[in-house]
Amino acid sequence: MMTRVVRGTASETSSPGQGGRPIGVFDSGVGGLTVLHELLVRLPREDFVYLGDTARFPYGERAPREIERFAAEIAEELLARGAKLLVVACNSATAAALPSLSRRMMQTTLGLDVLGVVRPEALQAVASTRSGRIGLLATPTTVSSRAYEQAVHTVDPHVTLHAVACPDLAAVIQAGEQFDERALATVREACRPLQDAGVDTVILGCTHYPLISPMLQRMLGPQVTLVSSGAALARQVEHALSTRELRNPRTEGEGEGEYRFLCTGDVEAFRELGTRFLQMPLGEVEHVELAAVEAVA
Amino acid sequence: MMTRVVRGTASETSSPGQGGRPIGVFDSGVGGLTVLHELLVRLPREDFVYLGDTARFPYGERAPREIERFAAEIAEELLARGAKLLVVACNSATAAALPSLSRRMMQTTLGLDVLGVVRPEALQAVASTRSGRIGLLATPTTVSSRAYEQAVHTVDPHVTLHAVACPDLAAVIQAGEQFDERALATVREACRPLQDAGVDTVILGCTHYPLISPMLQRMLGPQVTLVSSGAALARQVEHALSTRELRNPRTEGEGEGEYRFLCTGDVEAFRELGTRFLQMPLGEVEHVELAAVEAVA
Repeated sequence: MMTRVVRGTASETSSPGQGGRPIGVFDSGVGGLTVLHELLVRLPREDFVYLGDTARFPYGERAPREIERFAAEIAEELLARGAKLLVVACNSATAAALPSLSRRMMQTTLGLDVLGVVRPEALQAVASTRSGRIGLLATPTTVSSRAYEQAVHTVDPHVTLHAVACPDLAAVIQAGEQFDERALATVREACRPLQDAGVDTVILGCTHYPLISPMLQRMLGPQVTLVSSGAALARQVEHALSTRELRNPRTEGEGEGEYRFLCTGDVEAFRELGTRFLQMPLGEVEHVELAAVEAVA
Repeated sequence: MMTRVVRGTASETSSPGQGGRPIGVFDSGVGGLTVLHELLVRLPREDFVYLGDTARFPYGERAPREIERFAAEIAEELLARGAKLLVVACNSATAAALPSLSRRMMQTTLGLDVLGVVRPEALQAVASTRSGRIGLLATPTTVSSRAYEQAVHTVDPHVTLHAVACPDLAAVIQAGEQFDERALATVREACRPLQDAGVDTVILGCTHYPLISPMLQRMLGPQVTLVSSGAALARQVEHALSTRELRNPRTEGEGEGEYRFLCTGDVEAFRELGTRFLQMPLGEVEHVELAAVEAVA
């Protein structure tokens, strides 16, 4: 079914207690670090291993089948690193690959859970809205996938979702221009239809957008609730770990867990950009070559 | 009583409705921009004029009488720019100069309100704690002033305040090192006594500290509530404006208010550093020479 070389050390793959294993998090690049950021804050006793597939960034324009294959390759790598749960911290990968990846991981010996970014946000947005009018800011690919619409309507079919596709916003943020006049103009344009629609809750449907949440909050006004992937997802990860009895046994006195980083592209570029996205020091970044998988389930 | 040249234009000093005038905010440097940031988010329809006294930064080691005089000079400048309310977005200036500045401003024709950073935070911390054990992170000067202790005990004499003086933290953050290993070590050391004391609420008693709140939240754990100057103060400013009928009459359809910046030192340095602290574009920064005041009330 697949060809790969296991890279994890013996101790990593044969740790005695399952809870002591790290949580695996991946994204096409650095955007998912805003999700990791919330996970680190909410789950300070857990270890994390983050993989950014920067060599193949961005995923936005790729075919769903290709993204499924990439996600399977990354999952195998994280599995070899001892991951006890997988988090897909990327909207495109969640939309394209979550179902197939979940099936694949359930067949592993551990029966690994896979959690993605779309559903937790949709749930939290429906729980937050009082007017029944929810806004969505996302990339064109994510908007056309209608993944958020489906997720929202599964929970409440009577809620209206006003989606705004933002072609440039993630690029503006990734280029480090999030605090300049161009960002201001881009954000103002994106917010106008949401203001006209009178939404009271806005989903940040791209992992880059939390970096401009002050600007968004100012444009939309203090009465609008912003929902981002990280905070909503972190709660679900916490529940999943508790249900599966996979919480890290580390106690408060033993300090925080460890986090480490892998990327498929340039490690220095990842570290520089990543520090800004994570808002914490990254430490060492390891370059990794992913083994090809022959087919996806 | 004082000698000064009025620099505001005629239209600025003779605006017909009082509500249309800007809110004046000042600090010894850029730290107060984290307070402005919260004010912009909470009060998006208001105009703001911010003055950073960067030529005389930092205030921390100066005598209270000197800080009183600086604050009076800045207040006169902001008054000339049409300010309808003053916010002291600086812990040292609040501790040293708030009472004298309030008296001075109450004697002006407008009877200007002056709000500082210490009391709103103390109030919010007391409202937030369930264990009755509150932590404080602040500069050595602020800790020795006992201003937070007094403010907390005025509201609830049975609450315990565990104060930690952080000599280096503001400097580490101002130097742009908030995401590196040195910051991590400094923050870890500052948090340890608060963890040992079992506090459930921590006051960020310096306007620089919100820039490292993710790191603090991770060290202290998700069960600890962080209270920062900006959010607590913004609510009090909102209440003051409503009570005085000084809300800006601008409607939602008219967009957000304007904000502009003055500083007494190098404008380019202010703009570069300020953008990081404000997390929004700063636009033009104007150099300003403050006129000396002869005495303080």
